Order: sequence, then C-alpha cells, then structure tokens
Amino acid sequence: MSRVVKLAVIPGDGIGPEVIAEAVKVLDAVTAGSDVSFEKTPFSLGAGRFLETGDTLTDDDLDAIKAHDAILLGAVGGTPGDPRLKDANIERGLLLKLRFELDHYVNLRPSKLYPGQPGPLAEPGDIDFVVVREGTEGPYVGNGGSIRRGTPAEVANETSVNTAYGVERVVRYAFELAERRSKKLTLVHKTNVLVNAGSLWQRLVNEVAAEHPEVAVDYLHVDAATIFLVTNPSRFDVIVTDNLFGDILTDLAGAVTGGIGLAASGNINPSGASPSMFEPVHGSAPDIAGSGKADPTAAIGSIALLLDHLGLREEADRVTRAIESDISERGSAPRTTVEIGDAIAARLQA
Amino acid sequence: MSRVVKLAVIPGDGIGPEVIAEAVKVLDAVTAGSDVSFEKTPFSLGAGRFLETGDTLTDDDLDAIKAHDAILLGAVGGTPGDPRLKDANIERGLLLKLRFELDHYVNLRPSKLYPGQPGPLAEPGDIDFVVVREGTEGPYVGNGGSIRRGTPAEVANETSVNTAYGVERVVRYAFELAERRSKKLTLVHKTNVLVNAGSLWQRLVNEVAAEHPEVAVDYLHVDAATIFLVTNPSRFDVIVTDNLFGDILTDLAGAVTGGIGLAASGNINPSGASPSMFEPVHGSAPDIAGSGKADPTAAIGSIALLLDHLGLREEADRVTRAIESDISERGSAPRTTVEIGDAIAARLQA
Ligand SMILES: CC(C)[C@H](C(=O)O)[C@@H](O)C(=O)O
Ligand SMILES: CC(C)[C@H](C(=O)O)[C@@H](O)C(=O)O
Repeated sequence: MSRVVKLAVIPGDGIGPEVIAEAVKVLDAVTAGSDVSFEKTPFSLGAGRFLETGDTLTDDDLDAIKAHDAILLGAVGGTPGDPRLKDANIERGLLLKLRFELDHYVNLRPSKLYPGQPGPLAEPGDIDFVVVREGTEGPYVGNGGSIRRGTPAEVANETSVNTAYGVERVVRYAFELAERRSKKLTLVHKTNVLVNAGSLWQRLVNEVAAEHPEVAVDYLHVDAATIFLVTNPSRFDVIVTDNLFGDILTDLAGAVTGGIGLAASGNINPSGASPSMFEPVHGSAPDIAGSGKADPTAAIGSIALLLDHLGLREEADRVTRAIESDISERGSAPRTTVEIGDAIAARLQA
Repeated sequence: MSRVVKLAVIPGDGIGPEVIAEAVKVLDAVTAGSDVSFEKTPFSLGAGRFLETGDTLTDDDLDAIKAHDAILLGAVGGTPGDPRLKDANIERGLLLKLRFELDHYVNLRPSKLYPGQPGPLAEPGDIDFVVVREGTEGPYVGNGGSIRRGTPAEVANETSVNTAYGVERVVRYAFELAERRSKKLTLVHKTNVLVNAGSLWQRLVNEVAAEHPEVAVDYLHVDAATIFLVTNPSRFDVIVTDNLFGDILTDLAGAVTGGIGLAASGNINPSGASPSMFEPVHGSAPDIAGSGKADPTAAIGSIALLLDHLGLREEADRVTRAIESDISERGSAPRTTVEIGDAIAARLQA
C-alpha cells in the first residue's frame, strides 16, 4: 500500500528558497524507496510575488493550499526598508494569515543543544525542551487601532484576545506532550500585570493539571523565564505560553542552543481539519541571500517535525539522527547551504 | 548652604529591608560630612502591611509619599501562593500604582559588565548599555477585562494603550541620554505584528531622530533583540522600548551582566512634578529572606541613580566607582548582605 502526501511548498523570499531546496533534498532522501511519497506543489508567495502582482495571499491561493495535507514554508519578507513594500505587511498578510486561517493553534518549537555544539553560554548544561506557543490568539489577533493618527493626540491600542476555548486546547496539547517527555510543564505568562489573560491561563493550566497528576507543573513570569533561559536552561522541559511570549522565548531559546539557524518549528492544527505548516524559526535574511551562507538545518529539522506530524515516526527519527550527528561532528570550517544539505542527506543513505 | 533631601523609604517585603539597610548605609557614607543630608521617612508598605491591615496603598500613604523629593524602594511581594494574599495584587496595587500615580514615564535600567565579573556568557564582550523603558503605558495600563469568567466561553482581553504624548516624551529622554553616551539608539518593538502601536513608536522615533542627526538609530523586533542580548550585547548603547518589552529585556540584560542581584533602576518623572523612585530590579525573594544571601549591590546601585537624578553627580560617581571596584575584586567566596554593604561603604570612606 503506497501513501501519497500532498505537500504545498512555499519557498518564499531571501534565503527561503535556498534552505527549502535542501529540506526537500532530505525529504526525498529519507523517503526514497519507501511506500510513502510526497507530491509537491510549489506556491509563489512572499515579497517577491507581492512586488510582481500586488497580491499577498489571495482566496484562491488559500483554497489551493487548503487542499494539501501539509505545508513546508521557507521564509517570507523583503528587504527591510524597501519603499515598494511600505504598505505590504507580508508577515500579517501572509504568514500570520496562514496561521490564523488554518487554525494553527499549536506553534511547536523544540530547542536542543547537541553534544559538541558551540553556543553563547559558558556552561549551558543539558538543554532539551519544547515551547508550545499558542498560535491563534493573544496580542497577535490584529484587534487594534488608532485614532487621530499622525497628530500629537494620537492613541494607538492593541488588544490581546484570549479565550477559554483557545487556551484550553493548547494547554491540553502541552500536557499530552509533557506526558510523552519528562513530565514537567512550565506555564510562562505575566499574571501579575496582565491579570485577566493571566488568570485565564493560570486557571486552565490548574484545571488540566488535575487530569495529569504525574506532570509536575510550575509557573514563571516571562521576565524571569528569560533569566533562566540563560542561567539554567536545563530546568525546562515543556513550556506552554501565549503567542507573543512564545515568539520572544523561542528566539532566545534558539540563540542559547547554537543559533536560530538550527531552530525548527511546526504550526500545527492537531485536529487535522486543515494542513499543518512546518518552517524554520528564522526569517528571510535578505542580507545573506545568494551567498550560500544560510544554514539549512532549521528547515531540515522542520522536515523531521513534518514527518512526525504525519505519523511517519521512523522517517522522522532518521532525519533527527542525521541532523544530530551532522551537528555533533561539525567543525568550525564554514560550509555552504548545499554542503550542509548534502551532508545530512548523505547520512540518511548510509 | 546645606541642602536637605526628603527621602521616602519603602523597604517592603522579603529581602527588601535587608538590601535597603545596606543602601542607606552607603547613602549615609557618601554624604557624611558634606552639605547635603537626607531626611528619611520609612513607609511600611507591601505584603506585610497588607496582611496586618488589609491596606495596599491608601490615599493618605500616597499623599505622604508625594510630599517627598524622592523614593527609595526595596522590593514588595509576599510568598508566592500564600492563600492570604490571593486577592491582593501587591504588584498592581502598590508598585505599579506608584509608577502610574507619580507618572514615572522613564524606567531607567542600566546594564554593565564590570571587568573580572562572572556571567553566563562564554564571550560577553564589552557590555554597557541602558534600557529606557516606558513606564506609564502599554500593556501595563490595566485596561483589560473578561466576560463569562470561569465558563468554557470565557474571553479575557488585555489592551495596550499607547499615546503620542506618552511615547514622544520617553523617546525624547532616550535621545538626550544617547547624546550624552555613545550616540547610538535602538528602538525595540514588534512593529510587524503590533502594527498600530508599532507604527506610532516608529514614527515618533523617526521624528525625534531628525532633531538628533548625530545619533545613529536602528530598530530591532523584540524577539531578535533577545538574540543579540546573548550573542552580541556590546552592540547596544541606548535601547528605548515599551513597558512590557522593557520588563522582559531588562531581566535578560540583568542575567547576561552577572545577575539580577546587580541590576539597579530608576522610575523617573523628569519634569520633577512628583518624586522619582529608585529600586533594584529584583523582587522580594522570600525564599532567601533572612539568610543573609541577598546581594545589596542592585539597591546600592539605585542609590547612585538617585544621587545622579538629584544632580549630586560627584556623589553618584563615587558610589558607582565603589561598586565597580568591589565587583571587580569580588572573589568567588560568598559574602553576606551586610558584608557587601560594609565593603562598598568602606571604599567610600577610603
Ligand atoms: C515574522 C513574525 C510575524 C513571526 C512571529 O512573530 O510569529 C516570527 O517572528 C516567528 O516567530 O515566526
Ligand atoms: C513586579 C512587576 C510588576 C514589575 C514589572 O513587571 O514591571 C517587575 O518585574 C519589574 O520589572 O519592575
């Protein structure tokens, strides 16, 4: 019985297409000769498409993407300050629109420091945790506005919306993940200041915790969490947090585990009602596009998350092991994007 | 001509009184024999007072505090999870109430790594920057609420309020500070997601920048800023940012510069219309209260900021130099709170 997975591929801008080429290379390598195959449909989306056609994400694009089983995304966004992109918010109009329209309520971001891997911390310890970032609520909802814009009396508001519906489902996911890992879960929020949203998060964590008596639960304010991420990152296993705090913590987590060039992520709709999307945490980095300097490891790590999400556990493990052994044996000699992709793909064939 | 400064002293809870005792010791040492003296009025405020009387900050307290020239605060907050404090939000009802009522729109938080000082980064470089955190707006305004609380249909909102009035004044302060330092200013926000607030901040920074052509200005998203704080903290000189991002970045900054036990801060109303307040960034740490383990350096550093704010530049510099030489010569042998206070005070007499 052969299985065909329909994969929408959005290479995007800058280094996006470069890292996606390597990710696809690894995907092909790990599935070669197996009974699962990926039917890939490329989508031209991002700043490049906007500059050509003026479109960010049309209804037709969205419908076509929805007809797929999963999505692989590189990175989107043009050169900062490009005047032609002044009124195009590619992030809100494309990336966040996909996350919201496809109800990607789990933004899954693992962080691990592999043996032998260099990083900024003097004594990093054993770092291996996952941030479960809420993906469809919080300050990301776009429910803000301004009055008297451009005058000295301007007021600009941003509203963070948090619902029991939205918080409970992501908290449940995080507890189930904690059950499969070290049974330790940390809620990160700012309950002493954001008392309404904070209370909702705290109450739902307490409620769901009662159903998981084996999971040890603690709480940190977001400011304190950043301290521990640099002084004692091994204290973390599963972190569950809101959309904005998760954005901040996962970039920091990427930095302490050897750089954002290694950080993979999944935007997941666990119900399966719409395709989940896998992408490196890094951006399009137009400054290094074309130089061969982009590290495709984060994009390749996103392939492992994709395979795992599709239930292809063995393939996912093989990709993870190939990445791990490549990272552990990386010297300090720089390699190109293609060289890293080739090296990881070669380990899969071995 | 002798000058008398009326100083309201709020030792607070936990380690607050312990570090304040050392800060006052240093204040007395640096002003001994000079023509400025401090008339100190203690205020019993915090979790301890709440448990005794049920009051957090009464109108009478506030009026009495307003009659002072400046405020020195230790730390407030009881033991986390204490059931008797369930409905007391000491942070909102006391600390934030003081910041808002006294219009402390500049929350000034310097970070510096002294020669010889241990920290978590393998290659910290030369760290010396100041975060100018807005103190009276943003998500801290308390303009949130919830509906259907406790039901599966609960919605909890938090509104971040940002005004041209509030943003412009703190941005101006930051540019003036940058003029007196290395003439480099970084705006940190999340303009690609919080488009209304972000646009207001970006426009006002651009406007004020035009009046300061010598100041080099750049912009970072808050997530990227956390990366640079661990990979390249020496890139920063003056950071200007909103209330919540400033809260997060300054705890992280404290961590990378040797710990939150060293981080001083000023809650400043530059107009002088109400007293400014100086406090260590750390909290009340009830877990180590009474053990003599609390580091009073952050509280003593807040004395330097207080003296500087009062125009007592020479005294401020002497305290700063005493702290710097103490930190540089600190071995790894642990010292008590009192021993550190004594050592810094002794350097002032020398
Ligand atoms: C590009 C931006 C909108 C996005 C976010 O804030 O979520 C990015 O920082 C990320 O973490 O995926
Ligand atoms: C205690 C808390 C309300 C406060 C804040 O969030 O501002 C603290 O973290 C700080 O940074 O001074």
